[in-house]
Amino acid sequence: MVNMRLIFLGTSAAVPTSKRGLSSIALLRGNELLLFDAGEGMQQNFIKAGIGMNKKMKIFITHMHADHCVGLLGLLQTMSLQGRERILDIYGPLRLPEFLKENMRIMNFGLTFNINVHLINNEGIIIKENDYQVSCCNAYHSIPSYSYCLTEFERPGIFSIEEAKHLGIPEGKLYHELQHGQDITYEGKIIKSNQIMGPARPGRKVGISGDTRPTSRLQHFFKDCDVLVFESTYSYEKYHKALESFHSTATEAAQLAKAAGVKKLVLTHFSPRYEETTHLVQEAKTIHKNVEAAEDLKIADIHYREKQK
Amino acid sequence: MVNMRLIFLGTSAAVPTSKRGLSSIALLRGNELLLFDAGEGMQQNFIKAGIGMNKKMKIFITHMHADHCVGLLGLLQTMSLQGRERILDIYGPLRLPEFLKENMRIMNFGLTFNINVHLINNEGIIIKENDYQVSCCNAYHSIPSYSYCLTEFERPGIFSIEEAKHLGIPEGKLYHELQHGQDITYEGKIIKSNQIMGPARPGRKVGISGDTRPTSRLQHFFKDCDVLVFESTYSYEKYHKALESFHSTATEAAQLAKAAGVKKLVLTHFSPRYEETTHLVQEAKTIHKNVEAAEDLKIADIHYREKQK
Repeated sequence: MVNMRLIFLGTSAAVPTSKRGLSSIALLRGNELLLFDAGEGMQQNFIKAGIGMNKKMKIFITHMHADHCVGLLGLLQTMSLQGRERILDIYGPLRLPEFLKENMRIMNFGLTFNINVHLINNEGIIIKENDYQVSCCNAYHSIPSYSYCLTEFERPGIFSIEEAKHLGIPEGKLYHELQHGQDITYEGKIIKSNQIMGPARPGRKVGISGDTRPTSRLQHFFKDCDVLVFESTYSYEKYHKALESFHSTATEAAQLAKAAGVKKLVLTHFSPRYEETTHLVQEAKTIHKNVEAAEDLKIADIHYREKQK
Repeated sequence: MVNMRLIFLGTSAAVPTSKRGLSSIALLRGNELLLFDAGEGMQQNFIKAGIGMNKKMKIFITHMHADHCVGLLGLLQTMSLQGRERILDIYGPLRLPEFLKENMRIMNFGLTFNINVHLINNEGIIIKENDYQVSCCNAYHSIPSYSYCLTEFERPGIFSIEEAKHLGIPEGKLYHELQHGQDITYEGKIIKSNQIMGPARPGRKVGISGDTRPTSRLQHFFKDCDVLVFESTYSYEKYHKALESFHSTATEAAQLAKAAGVKKLVLTHFSPRYEETTHLVQEAKTIHKNVEAAEDLKIADIHYREKQK
């Protein structure tokens, strides 16, 4: 069992407000941090949230608009000032490598750690770890943009000690083999792993939209997310604004989430015109029953679908 | 009479803390804003302080370290999003023009207003307006850095209506001539301007150190400042750190201010190790009697030396 939670480090669109900083979402999974976007000023909330600068970490940039990437510069510098040594992987679209390279040259940064900058050219799986993968999908914004999903792999089913004991199997090596899906022979009888092991348990899936219009491609990409963080720059009344600026309304976010079978929808990236976002949540709730609004430093825990044993 | 006040928009050195953002100082003079440095995240305090994005404005960058200039990018973008139309002048050292040009290219900024980027190559007067000038002086930091001074010109003395009436001079054209320093002839008598006008009244002088070691050159540059904002990264106990990182201690700031005849010293740019700065002020006060610490969003009014009539 691995704990997973989102911490919102910046939830305002384009311009910060007195209460909301620019886009950045921390996804803490076990002892690792996956950071999605780094808008200007996000390091202050990163510090307030108590996330360590030397953490095992991957950073994903959705697109190269200033309000989503400028905070990278200060974050890297602060990591260096605090003596980070772990390598850092940064993923993002065209111009990310150039952005980092040129700024590090102009401002004469020296980093205390190595960074690997990965230019994303195509949709698909970009990282495969032991127990999860991260994939990306083209978003539909005014410049090349990606949405991301973290998908945990299935975990083995629950081992039934009662059943194993009932069949008289001794603890030890044979338990281990059954737990790893191997059928065994015990006292001349074949015992199949799936007699003892419950069904495989699904992992969790978390989606991050970045800035985008809703698309059927994204609806497919975010299918069955346990939590989907989707941009909701405008209320439905400003649909024309959403359309012309390649953003989404709360209504559209909810429609996509519902069609994709998303369990919980978190709205973020609010136009600074909205001091209060209750009406955006209300609007989305007329379509999808499980909706909330992100706030700076708000935490959203991501639970497994079934209860853990 | 022109109102003048400082608003501190960021007062932390290198790394923000939960209470302090990165370097930026707003000097509001009449309806004009002179902004010194734009550290990451400063636009959030700029917005909180209620300073308008379309204000008559000049920006001065002390040096091209990320924590002093990265906030320019977001500030320019927000100004554009809010439809600024006034031209904006930005002054700073080598690499400022390149920093802006490259980032605007990479992140594909479109500005709604024109900017003039002025590369400072030499010490001296960089701006001369009707009633004030701004000059710069080499600071002593790890990269090329400037300190700045705003100096108001002398204002004419106070016109004595009593004296004018006593001499029987009629209101109107002759008053005007006397007020503008011209001697007049009235009923055959020569009346000198300085019979009616009090002595010229000094303007105010405000200094901004940027990041620097104290130097005798700066002591001369800041001579007789009404208010000097000087960096105070460390306490005197960390003198060796100040020395190796080209910064100043609170003690050094106070020594320089005292030697320069500065009326009021404001300490800023505190190492993030100091949650509390009272001891830095105490330390400086053993040397200079009028010292205070800057805090984010703190306001310091800058008064004329004499009472206004």
